[in-house]
Amino acid sequence: MTVAARPAIPAERFEARLAAAGRAALDAGFDALLIGVGADLGYLTGYNAHESERLTMLVVRPSNRPSMVVPLLEKPAAEAGSRATIDIVTWRETESPAAVVAALVAGGTGSPLHLGVSDRLWSLHLLRLQEALPGATFASATAALRALRMTKDPDEVTLLRLAAEAADRVVDQIAAGRLVGRTEEDVSREVRERLVAEGHETAGFAIVASGPNSASPHHEASDRVIRAGEPIVLDIGGTLGGYGSDITRTLWVTGGDPANGPDDEYRHLYAVLHAAQARATNVVRPGIACESIDAAARDVIAAEGFGEAFIHRTGHGIGLEGHEEPYLVSGNVEPLGEGMAFSIEPGIYLEGRYGARIEDIVISGPDGPIPLNTTGRDLRIVAG
Amino acid sequence: MTVAARPAIPAERFEARLAAAGRAALDAGFDALLIGVGADLGYLTGYNAHESERLTMLVVRPSNRPSMVVPLLEKPAAEAGSRATIDIVTWRETESPAAVVAALVAGGTGSPLHLGVSDRLWSLHLLRLQEALPGATFASATAALRALRMTKDPDEVTLLRLAAEAADRVVDQIAAGRLVGRTEEDVSREVRERLVAEGHETAGFAIVASGPNSASPHHEASDRVIRAGEPIVLDIGGTLGGYGSDITRTLWVTGGDPANGPDDEYRHLYAVLHAAQARATNVVRPGIACESIDAAARDVIAAEGFGEAFIHRTGHGIGLEGHEEPYLVSGNVEPLGEGMAFSIEPGIYLEGRYGARIEDIVISGPDGPIPLNTTGRDLRIVAG
Repeated sequence: MTVAARPAIPAERFEARLAAAGRAALDAGFDALLIGVGADLGYLTGYNAHESERLTMLVVRPSNRPSMVVPLLEKPAAEAGSRATIDIVTWRETESPAAVVAALVAGGTGSPLHLGVSDRLWSLHLLRLQEALPGATFASATAALRALRMTKDPDEVTLLRLAAEAADRVVDQIAAGRLVGRTEEDVSREVRERLVAEGHETAGFAIVASGPNSASPHHEASDRVIRAGEPIVLDIGGTLGGYGSDITRTLWVTGGDPANGPDDEYRHLYAVLHAAQARATNVVRPGIACESIDAAARDVIAAEGFGEAFIHRTGHGIGLEGHEEPYLVSGNVEPLGEGMAFSIEPGIYLEGRYGARIEDIVISGPDGPIPLNTTGRDLRIVAG
Repeated sequence: MTVAARPAIPAERFEARLAAAGRAALDAGFDALLIGVGADLGYLTGYNAHESERLTMLVVRPSNRPSMVVPLLEKPAAEAGSRATIDIVTWRETESPAAVVAALVAGGTGSPLHLGVSDRLWSLHLLRLQEALPGATFASATAALRALRMTKDPDEVTLLRLAAEAADRVVDQIAAGRLVGRTEEDVSREVRERLVAEGHETAGFAIVASGPNSASPHHEASDRVIRAGEPIVLDIGGTLGGYGSDITRTLWVTGGDPANGPDDEYRHLYAVLHAAQARATNVVRPGIACESIDAAARDVIAAEGFGEAFIHRTGHGIGLEGHEEPYLVSGNVEPLGEGMAFSIEPGIYLEGRYGARIEDIVISGPDGPIPLNTTGRDLRIVAG
């Protein structure tokens, strides 16, 4: 097996992203982007700071060099962590960092400021900025950053692919192991350990939803003991090189006795789901509206009478964040662009009984879909 | 050794906290508290939801039963996760959750609404709420919740103590092991593994700052190789039973050769720091202002000429969050109350050379300080 080398994002890439963000801010009508700790900051600067009650904030203005406001005690960490040319502005423990940011963006045209703030900035900080800049209006910086963040460059695609391949291997390892008689939590712990062993920095989630729990899409893992003759929805992921993995496969454990296999209704439900997931994947091409991919899956499921049992959107973008734009949901008319990365993950949930979901990460390629998860999507009937 | 059993917070506790939060909201002038995912939500309901672009929001009104707005697909998870009596209100993927929250809080007096939002709510959500409730004013819900969250009940103190004791053991294990010739990252990985092995759910941070890196208070761990004849600041912690640990000890590694011991200047710096940390701990008593504890440490350090080298506050509260109120910082005149939990962690940092820090978690007891970290605070001169 050939394993692709893990690419490092070169420093020039961050300079280019910052310049593009400045132009995008101007286009979106922002006087400045105020970017707190999180994926936006990491994307633009390479600096992956801890979220904190102490404000760290990148200030991107269309016609100035970017500045980053950081707590004095984190100055060395910010200098070491940032990969781009940025002026570092420090604040001391007894100063107001919101006032420091306000002074940076104030002045200029005299007309009221319109400021874009990163989506994950804590309200604690936004409320203080709103107080420090009473005349300004605030909106989501994603209006400016979404096009940049959504379109993955080849290095980003490589990292997503490596993450997906690692997650594929973990699914196969879990499906090959013992499951019956173990608690969901125990299996979940094994999933997390295996994700790290396969190269992930962190195992963000490891949903193990057995029996009736498989009807709860965001069930975590409980102390329920897995029994023969029931399904298990495995929905697992984390980050590798900063980029997310997210795969769902559904197993059915028999305990080794073929009499414990799925009943005809479950086989039918799963066949419908499988067709819906394949259909949604196959319609992926540049220019198609995000909601059309959702509709493609939903139509297949609804035609078989399961429409009310598919209670979530079909997918979400993925990159530095596990969930990011674009969202594959009714109402999102955004056209897919080449290089976008997202999940395709329809599910069917019969409350109190059982459910199933199939999820791949897919790249919108020039000629159609490029699924990054490639391990088999059939219902895996295993002894467990 | 007697290990205290890990207490489980009983369901009635959450009911009492919710009732107290409603009263506190009224006292603070709020028409409602809007609590997103995070420690406030966990504290009030027991529900530890994942942070997400999909809004989950507890709505606490002084004279109504609490409601929690959750995505439809997370309804089973919310019902299973919440320990208190709460009305669950669901929203579908194509609906606006901000509109659902707005409808819940609207009406009433006719005067403009004043709403308290949790500090960690993402700006994405706050901006949508501000748009959905254009006449309302928003402020930090911590004004209402801080007194509740700051004062730990005996079960919370027990969990903090268990976390501290586990962290103490990890420090002792690391100090007894090999260090010279290893990278900071390698030692940091060992710290994280040991924290989990000692009962932590997560190892949130594991600062290993060697040589000149010890002068950077929030240095993480790098690929720098630890050498004989230099200090290492270990600042580690995570959560156990949901409650945080956070301890700092400073080592000096000799590689086994006494000639590689600390020079007189470092010994003096450390002695000053040790005295400052002890002094700040000793002034803890109910009623003393938070800033007086900061001043107690700072005065000792400044008197020896290191004032400019102590570049951060003396401490922060700890509980369900690693950093929470009360903050021990100049300007905070809040009087300490019995049962408050916080770090006392002065540091001295000589940029480009070296630094040191000593940190304990301390409870404000009826008769004075109760340090939860008890492992030795002397400079640990070890072979490494």
